[in-house]
Amino acid sequence: MPVLEIMAASHPANEAPYELIYWHVIPGRGEHIRLCFVEAGVPYSDTAFAEGGMDVLHAYISETNTGDELNPPPFAPPILKHGDLIISQTPNILQYLGPKLGLAANGGDDIFRVNALALTALDGFSNEVHNCHHPIAIDLYYEDQKEECLRRVKDWVKNRLPKYLGYFERVLAGKASKDGPWLYGGVLTWADLVLFQTLDGTTHFFRKAVAAARSSGKYDRVFQHYEAVKARPRIAEYLASDRRQKYSNYGIYRYYEELDVVPEE
Amino acid sequence: MPVLEIMAASHPANEAPYELIYWHVIPGRGEHIRLCFVEAGVPYSDTAFAEGGMDVLHAYISETNTGDELNPPPFAPPILKHGDLIISQTPNILQYLGPKLGLAANGGDDIFRVNALALTALDGFSNEVHNCHHPIAIDLYYEDQKEECLRRVKDWVKNRLPKYLGYFERVLAGKASKDGPWLYGGVLTWADLVLFQTLDGTTHFFRKAVAAARSSGKYDRVFQHYEAVKARPRIAEYLASDRRQKYSNYGIYRYYEELDVVPEE
Repeated sequence: MPVLEIMAASHPANEAPYELIYWHVIPGRGEHIRLCFVEAGVPYSDTAFAEGGMDVLHAYISETNTGDELNPPPFAPPILKHGDLIISQTPNILQYLGPKLGLAANGGDDIFRVNALALTALDGFSNEVHNCHHPIAIDLYYEDQKEECLRRVKDWVKNRLPKYLGYFERVLAGKASKDGPWLYGGVLTWADLVLFQTLDGTTHFFRKAVAAARSSGKYDRVFQHYEAVKARPRIAEYLASDRRQKYSNYGIYRYYEELDVVPEE
Repeated sequence: MPVLEIMAASHPANEAPYELIYWHVIPGRGEHIRLCFVEAGVPYSDTAFAEGGMDVLHAYISETNTGDELNPPPFAPPILKHGDLIISQTPNILQYLGPKLGLAANGGDDIFRVNALALTALDGFSNEVHNCHHPIAIDLYYEDQKEECLRRVKDWVKNRLPKYLGYFERVLAGKASKDGPWLYGGVLTWADLVLFQTLDGTTHFFRKAVAAARSSGKYDRVFQHYEAVKARPRIAEYLASDRRQKYSNYGIYRYYEELDVVPEE
């Protein structure tokens, strides 16, 4: 889609197109948002696949952008434009979209219950995996902090991976999940898509540790949940398409053979 | 307040008491929530100051807690109980409270604009400061990762502190702030309280680096904003009271003399 179309004059919010502004090449944090649109079957534009898309993105996060009358400048992608609204921060965008895409359970205060689950997956689980390849500095290359990375990942797979898997196992065992397979309220919500994507990315990063967790039998509900999301017809079709970008060592979820460790006793 | 009173049978949400479940001894993430109640002049209970409060907290985060019919178990404090609703994750609790406490600008989609600012301060700025004292492992003591900490803080004050201060300076300079002193819409919102608390804690951690940033003149709007929040009558009274807990080396914002570095050229 051409840049001008992406930047088209805004429509009233209800009929406005959904415009995702995110990096190309990596699934990254944008992928959580894409999966919501995919599951809901709702169209959206995406700078990752648009000619000139990165120019649009860079204009939003430029140090000269001070926003507009209605919207502060975004700190970083992903960014969502929907009519006059321009917002950033992944969990925030997901919470805005959840009710509009029918992914917010039974409405009302459920959005806060779902958001708590999504934030635990995103700002806990996923961000900790991300920090595994740059414990010392976000702006330094992995190659400049290799030893520290190894020390960190050994701790992470031993102490933190079981903590997150155990937590979501408990959520799925709880009464509020209504006997599953979904995390909350007996219906698929955006938190399910976030947990799926987080575990999928973590499996790319820590193949051996996740395989060991799966075969331990301690987290069967979590892995059944993962498979249930993966088998949703629109999700399955999307994952098999070339719209699903591959993980790479530019993104959140990387693969370095020497960091693919198993938990030590 | 006795535990039984804290745990009292739930009321209809509108007249239900606000119950904050958080650690004692440290301001921590709970402080963002406390400042909202304080600014709004709305009463709340707080396990940090309640007899038996830590028993209540530990019951919520116990590995045997699977939640109830309506609420998944919380992953970690802070937790808010309001009538039948039990939610966790700081930005989520703030977003729930914002409109109820009159801290959500002009309503409607503004809650997502405000939430993006709050998330940038919390999940970016504040969490990165927190990670400065445990780059290798959350569960390891600072003493077991001292060298890595020093390497990390040197990078952080040089590259990340200016990035966050510069971002909020831009937000305050933008049209959506309506000429300040507040971040959004010409009114004080929960994002202002979050930025204040984050900068206050960062100043405790990095005295020299924040002092250098202040005297540089590059971030005058940010430091004026900080002073404007601090001077709000209810906030000023609270900060001077013994309800305001001191920072300590058990919390997010610590002080180690050897980590109090100035940015190197």
